[in-house]
Amino acid sequence: MHGADYNPDQWQHDPKVLEEDIRLMKLAKCNVMAIGIFGWSALEPEEGVFTFEWLDRVLNAFAENGIYAWLATPSGARPAWMAEKYPEVLRVGANRVRNLFGARHNHCYTSPVYRDKVALMNQKLAERYSQHPAVVGWHISNEYSDDCHCDYCQDAFRGWLQSKYGTLDALNMAWWTSFWSHTYTSWSQIESPAPHGEKLVHGMNLDWKRFVTDQTVDFCRHEIAPLKAINPELPVTANLMDAYEGLNYWKFTDVLDVISWDAYPTWHHAKDQSSLAAWFSLNHDMFRSLRGGQPFLLMESTPSLTNWQPVSKLKRPGMHLLSSLQAVAHGSDSVQYFQWRKSRGASEKLHGAVVDHVGHEHTRVFRDVAELGGHLEKLTEVLGTTVPAETAIIFDWENRWAVKDSQGPRNMGINYEQTVLSHYQAFWDQGVPVDVIDMTGDFSKYKLVVAPMLYMVRPGVGERIEQFVAGGGTFVATYWSGIVDENDLCFLGGFPGPLRQTLGIWSEEIDGLYDHDENQIICSEGNSLELTGSFKVRELCELIHLEGAEALAVYGDDFYAGRPALTVNQFGQGKAYYIAARAEQSFQSSFYKQLIKEANIEPALRTDLPHEVTAQIRTDGDSEFIFLMNFSDQDQVIMLDERTYSDMLAVDGTAGSGAVSSSLVLQPYGVRVLKRSKV
Amino acid sequence: MHGADYNPDQWQHDPKVLEEDIRLMKLAKCNVMAIGIFGWSALEPEEGVFTFEWLDRVLNAFAENGIYAWLATPSGARPAWMAEKYPEVLRVGANRVRNLFGARHNHCYTSPVYRDKVALMNQKLAERYSQHPAVVGWHISNEYSDDCHCDYCQDAFRGWLQSKYGTLDALNMAWWTSFWSHTYTSWSQIESPAPHGEKLVHGMNLDWKRFVTDQTVDFCRHEIAPLKAINPELPVTANLMDAYEGLNYWKFTDVLDVISWDAYPTWHHAKDQSSLAAWFSLNHDMFRSLRGGQPFLLMESTPSLTNWQPVSKLKRPGMHLLSSLQAVAHGSDSVQYFQWRKSRGASEKLHGAVVDHVGHEHTRVFRDVAELGGHLEKLTEVLGTTVPAETAIIFDWENRWAVKDSQGPRNMGINYEQTVLSHYQAFWDQGVPVDVIDMTGDFSKYKLVVAPMLYMVRPGVGERIEQFVAGGGTFVATYWSGIVDENDLCFLGGFPGPLRQTLGIWSEEIDGLYDHDENQIICSEGNSLELTGSFKVRELCELIHLEGAEALAVYGDDFYAGRPALTVNQFGQGKAYYIAARAEQSFQSSFYKQLIKEANIEPALRTDLPHEVTAQIRTDGDSEFIFLMNFSDQDQVIMLDERTYSDMLAVDGTAGSGAVSSSLVLQPYGVRVLKRSKV
Amino acid sequence: MHGADYNPDQWQHDPKVLEEDIRLMKLAKCNVMAIGIFGWSALEPEEGVFTFEWLDRVLNAFAENGIYAWLATPSGARPAWMAEKYPEVLRVGANRVRNLFGARHNHCYTSPVYRDKVALMNQKLAERYSQHPAVVGWHISNEYSDDCHCDYCQDAFRGWLQSKYGTLDALNMAWWTSFWSHTYTSWSQIESPAPHGEKLVHGMNLDWKRFVTDQTVDFCRHEIAPLKAINPELPVTANLMDAYEGLNYWKFTDVLDVISWDAYPTWHHAKDQSSLAAWFSLNHDMFRSLRGGQPFLLMESTPSLTNWQPVSKLKRPGMHLLSSLQAVAHGSDSVQYFQWRKSRGASEKLHGAVVDHVGHEHTRVFRDVAELGGHLEKLTEVLGTTVPAETAIIFDWENRWAVKDSQGPRNMGINYEQTVLSHYQAFWDQGVPVDVIDMTGDFSKYKLVVAPMLYMVRPGVGERIEQFVAGGGTFVATYWSGIVDENDLCFLGGFPGPLRQTLGIWSEEIDGLYDHDENQIICSEGNSLELTGSFKVRELCELIHLEGAEALAVYGDDFYAGRPALTVNQFGQGKAYYIAARAEQSFQSSFYKQLIKEANIEPALRTDLPHEVTAQIRTDGDSEFIFLMNFSDQDQVIMLDERTYSDMLAVDGTAGSGAVSSSLVLQPYGVRVLKRSKV
Repeated sequence: MHGADYNPDQWQHDPKVLEEDIRLMKLAKCNVMAIGIFGWSALEPEEGVFTFEWLDRVLNAFAENGIYAWLATPSGARPAWMAEKYPEVLRVGANRVRNLFGARHNHCYTSPVYRDKVALMNQKLAERYSQHPAVVGWHISNEYSDDCHCDYCQDAFRGWLQSKYGTLDALNMAWWTSFWSHTYTSWSQIESPAPHGEKLVHGMNLDWKRFVTDQTVDFCRHEIAPLKAINPELPVTANLMDAYEGLNYWKFTDVLDVISWDAYPTWHHAKDQSSLAAWFSLNHDMFRSLRGGQPFLLMESTPSLTNWQPVSKLKRPGMHLLSSLQAVAHGSDSVQYFQWRKSRGASEKLHGAVVDHVGHEHTRVFRDVAELGGHLEKLTEVLGTTVPAETAIIFDWENRWAVKDSQGPRNMGINYEQTVLSHYQAFWDQGVPVDVIDMTGDFSKYKLVVAPMLYMVRPGVGERIEQFVAGGGTFVATYWSGIVDENDLCFLGGFPGPLRQTLGIWSEEIDGLYDHDENQIICSEGNSLELTGSFKVRELCELIHLEGAEALAVYGDDFYAGRPALTVNQFGQGKAYYIAARAEQSFQSSFYKQLIKEANIEPALRTDLPHEVTAQIRTDGDSEFIFLMNFSDQDQVIMLDERTYSDMLAVDGTAGSGAVSSSLVLQPYGVRVLKRSKV
Repeated sequence: MHGADYNPDQWQHDPKVLEEDIRLMKLAKCNVMAIGIFGWSALEPEEGVFTFEWLDRVLNAFAENGIYAWLATPSGARPAWMAEKYPEVLRVGANRVRNLFGARHNHCYTSPVYRDKVALMNQKLAERYSQHPAVVGWHISNEYSDDCHCDYCQDAFRGWLQSKYGTLDALNMAWWTSFWSHTYTSWSQIESPAPHGEKLVHGMNLDWKRFVTDQTVDFCRHEIAPLKAINPELPVTANLMDAYEGLNYWKFTDVLDVISWDAYPTWHHAKDQSSLAAWFSLNHDMFRSLRGGQPFLLMESTPSLTNWQPVSKLKRPGMHLLSSLQAVAHGSDSVQYFQWRKSRGASEKLHGAVVDHVGHEHTRVFRDVAELGGHLEKLTEVLGTTVPAETAIIFDWENRWAVKDSQGPRNMGINYEQTVLSHYQAFWDQGVPVDVIDMTGDFSKYKLVVAPMLYMVRPGVGERIEQFVAGGGTFVATYWSGIVDENDLCFLGGFPGPLRQTLGIWSEEIDGLYDHDENQIICSEGNSLELTGSFKVRELCELIHLEGAEALAVYGDDFYAGRPALTVNQFGQGKAYYIAARAEQSFQSSFYKQLIKEANIEPALRTDLPHEVTAQIRTDGDSEFIFLMNFSDQDQVIMLDERTYSDMLAVDGTAGSGAVSSSLVLQPYGVRVLKRSKV
Repeated sequence: MHGADYNPDQWQHDPKVLEEDIRLMKLAKCNVMAIGIFGWSALEPEEGVFTFEWLDRVLNAFAENGIYAWLATPSGARPAWMAEKYPEVLRVGANRVRNLFGARHNHCYTSPVYRDKVALMNQKLAERYSQHPAVVGWHISNEYSDDCHCDYCQDAFRGWLQSKYGTLDALNMAWWTSFWSHTYTSWSQIESPAPHGEKLVHGMNLDWKRFVTDQTVDFCRHEIAPLKAINPELPVTANLMDAYEGLNYWKFTDVLDVISWDAYPTWHHAKDQSSLAAWFSLNHDMFRSLRGGQPFLLMESTPSLTNWQPVSKLKRPGMHLLSSLQAVAHGSDSVQYFQWRKSRGASEKLHGAVVDHVGHEHTRVFRDVAELGGHLEKLTEVLGTTVPAETAIIFDWENRWAVKDSQGPRNMGINYEQTVLSHYQAFWDQGVPVDVIDMTGDFSKYKLVVAPMLYMVRPGVGERIEQFVAGGGTFVATYWSGIVDENDLCFLGGFPGPLRQTLGIWSEEIDGLYDHDENQIICSEGNSLELTGSFKVRELCELIHLEGAEALAVYGDDFYAGRPALTVNQFGQGKAYYIAARAEQSFQSSFYKQLIKEANIEPALRTDLPHEVTAQIRTDGDSEFIFLMNFSDQDQVIMLDERTYSDMLAVDGTAGSGAVSSSLVLQPYGVRVLKRSKV
């Protein structure tokens, strides 16, 4: 699928626009559009008056021209008449002030009126369009986000707590309210976190975030119900955002049939683009992992530039193709854009689009899009295939909330996401496919599980990690792990709490380092991983004791010089590694290179890759599709391994026909898709 | 005129102060004072009780001693009793919270009560003083600024919109409300921009700013009416502020008889003071241009330092004279200060004044002021003369609002003012007089019109530029021009919209550059302007196509190397230049040097000026007065041209008597005023 | 005394914890605990229901085990039921919005309900425990801080003003309300400072801060009354914070029997720790000076690290002992910690404690604490002794409020505290004991009084300084002194106002320097202080005239080169020095080194000390106890003077037995306590 968000509701005053758009869509080889997002004013201009005619025209024109639609529910923005008549639909901030009408995503997801209005609208849409030949699925709302603190939400939060904890005693214990005399003696005393109220009760903060996720999921379910009631077959998706912190996306996996997300990398910012590219790869891998490896959709990306980043830089030649196929490489079955045609006014009028204000196809961007459309046609074999990951990295929302909210060793930056990325990037650099999961995932599918900074360990997780290792798996943990339980209550009796036995160490203290501080870890002679030399460490250094584990490296400086900094514990059939300090990237590279070898993990390509280049793999079980991607602004030479490859994007246009020799040159921002047989 | 703001109302408890002040004013050669600003509490200490006696005493003393007064209306701050009895007079913030009593400029300009109170006060003042021999004019309020969001203002805004647009359909189209479902279906749904409401509808933001200007002008008109009713001859002025963004000063030109403004440069901050000096020159030129070149007043400046800037640095010897005569050079007929005598307490007690807390005349500052007074007496010939500008630079408020509000290629800094300044400075460096106008100005008066970053082009402006060029004028436009119409709606069909034909180019894309990025433009061999070499460009690079224009320079780097970066289009009798990228200052210098030659524009002096030195000119048609100003901390040698000059500030005290040889040395912060005959 | 804050109320669910804690306290040689802080929910879980049983158990266990308690009043945090039933107990912010329940220190100190509840609670506590054998005193509330703007407080503020000023005329004159038309005509018009009201009337800001102090002191007195009513003998303390700006601690000296404070240095941040160490020494000296040199208590410090600083760095080996004995060196009779046992949850769960989450004594921190306990036992002789300071530095709260609030020569940083520290550090470096007093202190006790940046001079102070100098004292003042009176009204007639005659100079102007500016002062040949060379000056340079004083150094650069920069005035039997510019630290070192000699001031040790090392002294009149402290990470050699010393912490454990040779090596972060006889 190749397409874009399309807003014909903005162009009703000029009917020629639709006609021209259909012509251009075909020219650009676009076959799918997301429509109706933010269309409420056009669909119900006054209460109870529905005007679907314009949408009929669009969808019929699509059907006649072989174009498909993800049809949106318009709940992402409510019309002015609704806000005026029912102020309760507007959100209330943490400062307890109700928003005025304006912006988008400005509704209370608890408000009964809003829920009624949404249910009615969605029912009408479903009645009219759920059998329409152009409609391939539902696009639910838009980028769910943020929270509301109105009285309805306060009541809902209290109800949620009551059903979670049963008694106030249990809640008081979980939140450790005896600290600072916070003991609640009635449910009505509880208020959501507020800048001028409570913001430091970490257990409450966590529960508020969980509630916000649950309430949003509930609202999403409420949106879907009338759609499924009328046509249970039509799939639903909701466009998510890269690692959006406010909502635990793992809670949406049961509600959505298809995962889709919106990716906006700031290409050409840094000289070295490997971290940025790896971050978006990580996200692709996570969105694929959300539903067990099932292909996802790239619902939004920009065909040229955004207008909301600090600087809107044009994509350099090649980057549009590279960046789009990066999504496909990690499991996307589509490339879609925000937006098809630039709006004339308001806040996103300068956001990149396939069709610019100039209105015609004779632009660099249009040509890039059409070229990509041609390439995508050559990749139909790849559709529906999956990624054969033997490694999983844990990137857990609740852990993220907890470790960042907690006041601890480095309030000036605990850098959870960057830490996860740093571990991920070691695999990306070596072309090793990875799943990105949360801590409730199934570890048994993997040879290697990496858990960077697993500060929170929820019930059962420590046990499952123990079983995984005992059964022969390799597990890697780091400093600042096993500190708190699911309520952000510290484990008593010794860190890393439930991981202590598996890892065979006790962590006594953690030293926070200023930005100007550094230490080093020195690899022990003859260590079992054959690591050599020393590596700089910064930010966090843990002082640990061996309790069965063996030291592979020790600190080099300061009063803890000589104490263990990297350990391994033989546990059952497996091994558990512990990295006690935050090391520079070259440590992660060296360490995981050895581990990949030791754990017998298969990379996409059995070859060393140049810096800023990655290889990713999808497979249908018989064929393997290798995506070679060069994110640098230089030519890069790749030596292939001994297997036989064909080039799927070869210029002669016949997919799979082009034979490939043993080495390849990737141009700046170049991408190649190779095919080989699985042996 | 030489004088200051004077606040005798602060010293009523000590009658000797007035007597001493009169003595000191004469000693300082000061002959005009602005009085009564913020005097409401002293004039009407309780509702309906007026106490003019102290003001009688002051004005009578002035009259007896040959001192004149700009008499202020006191509306810049309302008294406490009024705020307590009528809370509606206090301003409401964008957050919809009403201010408490305090500060100044804290009134609603729509409030009926405040308007009544102001009208009554002004009528009383006019009745009593409009024939007073000491009073030379009215000083209306003080530094009008900011806005109010109370219910009165909301209603007034809706009324303003209704009378502008007539129908909601027209408003919805102009604001492009179909985006994000913002369509208004009743006027009452409209609210002014708010941080917790709407802030991203650019058309609304623009209209709100226009409304605020119009409502402030209306308030100003309301203030003036009772004054003019009693003595229509007495002129009115209002003290404006340097390029104050909140109000479009061009709307005040019909309401005020005389323009005056308040200038507070941060001298001695940067090592190179040319940009700072040029910025204040630009402002002087703009305030002069506001009423078609009519001389203005420097209503406020500091005789020593301010107390509200980050650092209050003393003026170095010479700077007081230089900085004061800079105003005169650009058309000011006065030098006035804030303030005559330092207050003892409250927030501005440490702001520089002619009379310090020490109370006597034996201070460096007092001596500097008195010396300037002496020099001003030698310059009476200059009074009333004008500046013969053949060049105009467009610095347009609505364009400024639009280009800065819009989210686009460089949200981290679109730098509109700096861009205008950069073009202005090329003329300043070369001693070429310039008018600073808005886009509705009359272009036919000029040989050269420069329009830096004319993002917005209002109706008719494109046509008038076309006529100007066709008729033989030279026009310069830059990147990011011709993007939107008066509603911030993008021009369809190709940028730069209404300027496309005149400029002979089509702009396809614009590349935003990070601060660490740069490109270059390389002058084409044998180009018609005889420009040579290459220049660095940063921040913004446009990718344009020639449509009749000729390329004078091309990009040097990146994927658009070789594409046109500077173009000229012969159009009718004139030429239209287009600068496609933001270049370093040396490009502006070189480019305009050639253009000044090509367009046959006359500088103040036919000679090259050293860096940080400028020459400005005023003329009465017969004589020409040349101001040579050295803003550097070094001696600077100026070679005069062949004409005959006399030195108006010569030490022997006889204006115009001192003959001048062919070269001059300006001391650090030195200034010379030369006179020559117009040939 | 050696101990910690202890919160057994958090562990009521696990009775074994108390038993284990008693065991560990004895092991750690801890003999005092502060308990009940924030215990209100545990003491009165519902209105009128008091549950003292748990506290009985704790105190009885203490008594049985020789552990003492500072028993806290729990007013630092109010329980949820109280906030729910009586919202008036919650604080109102300057924005006039009432806080929600949450946090601590969130009560209105004026609220009648809160005062009633506190009085009743304290009476109950006193009735039950004021004769308990374990209780050694009362710990009143916790870290009083911040303010409230509710209607009760507004009324109290107006009442406070009425009783201070009597008439509105007096208030209007003191606040100089004629500026900007602020004249108040009824008391009800007055509102506390507000971001959306008045914030620039400096006199009002000062009075508000004074009122907040007075109202907090009044609340404290209200807390103490029921305690003293029942047992007048039991001493009261309140834990103060390092140089906390919001409250003038000098107003608490009459109310508290014992001063105590909480010290949290960020050790190991800077490479050179001398400024940080000196800052905490300065605070120790100030808290000792508050009650005329009487020993104070170190009520809180961390046994390892905090969790609320930007980085939580572990104390390096030695630092715990050094940092604790630093307090003792300056007059503390205790070393106490926050906290004994880490809480499991909420915002301070990761704050250092004697007992970590691991729960046992086998930690580095526990061993450090126990080691210190052992050393403290050797220092019982030092208890109750005082510090023989001949020098006083004025660090005055009202001056601090005024000089920082006022808009003046350097709004980007007037750096009052840093300036005081810079002068203090010159003494610290040379091991000279200092008292830190406010300007109302008794100067006659000292040989030398230093008043850095005495911007405000309150009535009588100038006269007392004059008498001090006339009587033979040495006085040092600096730039930006003698500017305003107690109402922040400028002195008329010449700065430095009441100090002008004593100093023999007139200050005409002050030049603010940007951060990139500098000047220098050059010592005059043959000056009476024998100072040589030149010193860099930055930030502030005053232009002064000699009026009897003699110049010891002059400016080196800029237009005021050659003008006096350092002066001395012989006045009566004494001398008054004036430093006209802000000099680098080496100037303070050189200047005070000479002054100490000239004024015949006795250091702790007659020897030069290495950098980052200080020597401090306590004495009982017969013996002198010298604390040698090395804050560097290097070995440091100290040459002792000719007197005989014994080492009180000698390893053999017999206090005072170890003879010491003529030189000592202090290890990194090393400390030695020596004893000598007073001769």
